[in-house]
Amino acid sequence: MSPRARKLGRGVALVGAGMSKFGAFPDKTSRDLFAEAFTAMSKSVDKGFDTNDIEALYVGNFSSDLFEGQGHVAPIMADWVGLVPKPATRVEDACASGGVAIREGIIAVASGLYDIVLVGGTEKMTNLPTEEVTDTLAAARDAIYEGAPGFSFPGLYAAMATAYMDKHGASTEHFMKVGIKNHNNGALNPKAQFNKSIRDLMDSRIEKAKQKGDPVPDWHEELDFLKDPKANPIVAWPMRLFDCSPITDGAACILLVAEEIAKDFANDPIYVVGSGQGSDHALHEREDLTTISAARFAGQQAYDMASVKPEDIQIAEVHDCFTIAELVAIEDLGFFKPGEGYKATEQGLTARNGSKPINTSGGLKSKGHPVGASGVGQVVEIWHQMRGEAGERQVPERDIRLALTHNVGATGGTCTVHIFHRR
Amino acid sequence: MSPRARKLGRGVALVGAGMSKFGAFPDKTSRDLFAEAFTAMSKSVDKGFDTNDIEALYVGNFSSDLFEGQGHVAPIMADWVGLVPKPATRVEDACASGGVAIREGIIAVASGLYDIVLVGGTEKMTNLPTEEVTDTLAAARDAIYEGAPGFSFPGLYAAMATAYMDKHGASTEHFMKVGIKNHNNGALNPKAQFNKSIRDLMDSRIEKAKQKGDPVPDWHEELDFLKDPKANPIVAWPMRLFDCSPITDGAACILLVAEEIAKDFANDPIYVVGSGQGSDHALHEREDLTTISAARFAGQQAYDMASVKPEDIQIAEVHDCFTIAELVAIEDLGFFKPGEGYKATEQGLTARNGSKPINTSGGLKSKGHPVGASGVGQVVEIWHQMRGEAGERQVPERDIRLALTHNVGATGGTCTVHIFHRR
Repeated sequence: MSPRARKLGRGVALVGAGMSKFGAFPDKTSRDLFAEAFTAMSKSVDKGFDTNDIEALYVGNFSSDLFEGQGHVAPIMADWVGLVPKPATRVEDACASGGVAIREGIIAVASGLYDIVLVGGTEKMTNLPTEEVTDTLAAARDAIYEGAPGFSFPGLYAAMATAYMDKHGASTEHFMKVGIKNHNNGALNPKAQFNKSIRDLMDSRIEKAKQKGDPVPDWHEELDFLKDPKANPIVAWPMRLFDCSPITDGAACILLVAEEIAKDFANDPIYVVGSGQGSDHALHEREDLTTISAARFAGQQAYDMASVKPEDIQIAEVHDCFTIAELVAIEDLGFFKPGEGYKATEQGLTARNGSKPINTSGGLKSKGHPVGASGVGQVVEIWHQMRGEAGERQVPERDIRLALTHNVGATGGTCTVHIFHRR
Repeated sequence: MSPRARKLGRGVALVGAGMSKFGAFPDKTSRDLFAEAFTAMSKSVDKGFDTNDIEALYVGNFSSDLFEGQGHVAPIMADWVGLVPKPATRVEDACASGGVAIREGIIAVASGLYDIVLVGGTEKMTNLPTEEVTDTLAAARDAIYEGAPGFSFPGLYAAMATAYMDKHGASTEHFMKVGIKNHNNGALNPKAQFNKSIRDLMDSRIEKAKQKGDPVPDWHEELDFLKDPKANPIVAWPMRLFDCSPITDGAACILLVAEEIAKDFANDPIYVVGSGQGSDHALHEREDLTTISAARFAGQQAYDMASVKPEDIQIAEVHDCFTIAELVAIEDLGFFKPGEGYKATEQGLTARNGSKPINTSGGLKSKGHPVGASGVGQVVEIWHQMRGEAGERQVPERDIRLALTHNVGATGGTCTVHIFHRR
């Protein structure tokens, strides 16, 4: 089914974006992280704004219910940044909660009901032991058809990865190369949870072994390190530890306003020109595990709304919860043909200095994946790159006019795609 | 702070509404209940429709995460009624999740992005033991400020009730009269969980005692029964068992379309003319426990948008999760002055044949309270009453042109108000 081409009732612009540091913060709750992101966002608004002028809040959150015993998070976040009595709504679509919150914020401004809307995402995950986090995240699978047989997400994505290998001839090395690239980017992102390259991690372990007088591992290239089962154990074959995004605490915020007032906030506003969202059956019910049809549906909607093509997009943040997910994403979005994503990655086309830089922030893999916040965090990177404020990781020698974000819930039960334009 | 008067970008109409039976259904999941509600809604659409024409789904759900171990419910519900690959979004604001889903559906149609949107609510609660349900619902309080001191919802509403008694001179009998009225209405609603009047319940217990040869209770009026601590034990004084809404499984669905195509669906569409939503601090941080300021804020927005006054509203479904909540609601909505709600109830003004019928469905108290579905269920009653299809419980001798729904999350951290108009 092809999505109906639609336009928003009026234009929407992005005039601010900021995030908390992503990482493990034992002393912080999701509300603390949210306030930190709100403060960072506030500082990014060129001409400033009055918090009282914000008319509504949409918060993406996967499950503070399960992680913190706290449902009904939206009014708490509203209270924490001074928005009471304004409407505050939580939206949830698993790991696409942030992307869906962005879409609701866009729709709300387009409806004419509000001119100024805050969109945020927040998740506090590291207070639970790792095994419990995996179980908690597993609430996003289909409890009846996928939960009962014992699937959790590493297993579900491993099924996608084996199908991809089988169909397209990719090897586990190709997955590893996604991780190497994203860690190279994350190493340049001070807000990333793991801001170290795989090479730096490898070198520091070698150094540590030397200092302790332990046998020095025989690692020369990153792939030597990643293929060593002691350094990079298998989680669910072919997905190893370094194919999985980490467990993360974090929050992100963006400010959306009606197009006609955008210049009251930003010197050079970024316009939301495309938005798409799709749903899909759970994984057990799909014919092809090497593509996410909700992503294709959402992408088509967003491209049609923006009247642009995949080749027009200059940079993208895509949902790399597992390394296989990035390969599927860059094919679903039409950046590369089916089965060509892993070759493009191997050729360096998706690197920061490649022709189609993907996940310059480090992606979920290296920047971190506080699930409900991740989709909003993607837009924070787009904001910095489009304004030329991404510091050391700024995409070189390019005037970025069109950028895209792609956020997936579970194994693709939900996907959102957004396209941003700097005029 | 007074809400800004706003209009929607384009008109939105209600063209179908239906619900599952509310009750305890050990063999049904939330997806089964949702499909049942969708089928009931489908049958209510005068001119029929093609499921393929539905462009998006909004689902209100408080916490299938906690109740069923199932997050990410929206695409599952979409799949269950045949909507894949359309966008499917869960919204959550505790017990106002349904009302907020309705608001998002309205906003989405008003934005121009969709013409036809399905809004539903679903919750499956009775699979957990009662005590665990109370704990699960307690996730909607502020975990830090209300949870740590041991508050759950009966206690929080009891605090509101004692404040109301102290300020306005009401007694526990006044709360009981809300319950008596709502059970009288629910007794006429075949989809209600408790479709028995308090008198019928009392009489059947007397009959049972006689049959067993037990001592016959000295009950003559409903109040005798409700004051007997064996029949109606204290839960959190002054709230007794019959002051509390039950634990319920259920779902409800409505179909919203753009005003200009409404007559392609319904002979006599009902137009959404007002929508409001507000947030508030948690209860511990409020100056006055006898009013919910989010409800006043939301009500004011809805009245302003609709250009009507409280006295214009002919019937209303309000959020009576506890009997005290109905008294606070009818005052917050401006139907009665502060401190006059309990007197109006005593005088029968809010009864089905009174001047301002409240909760003709039986309310959450008697119809049942499947939390994420309740706000959508309220609109199902409004739909039946406005069309003159409410059967035995039809409000007598009145042509209903303006009706209102009022849905509260937690102790008022969220409130939504909607106003419906039949031309």
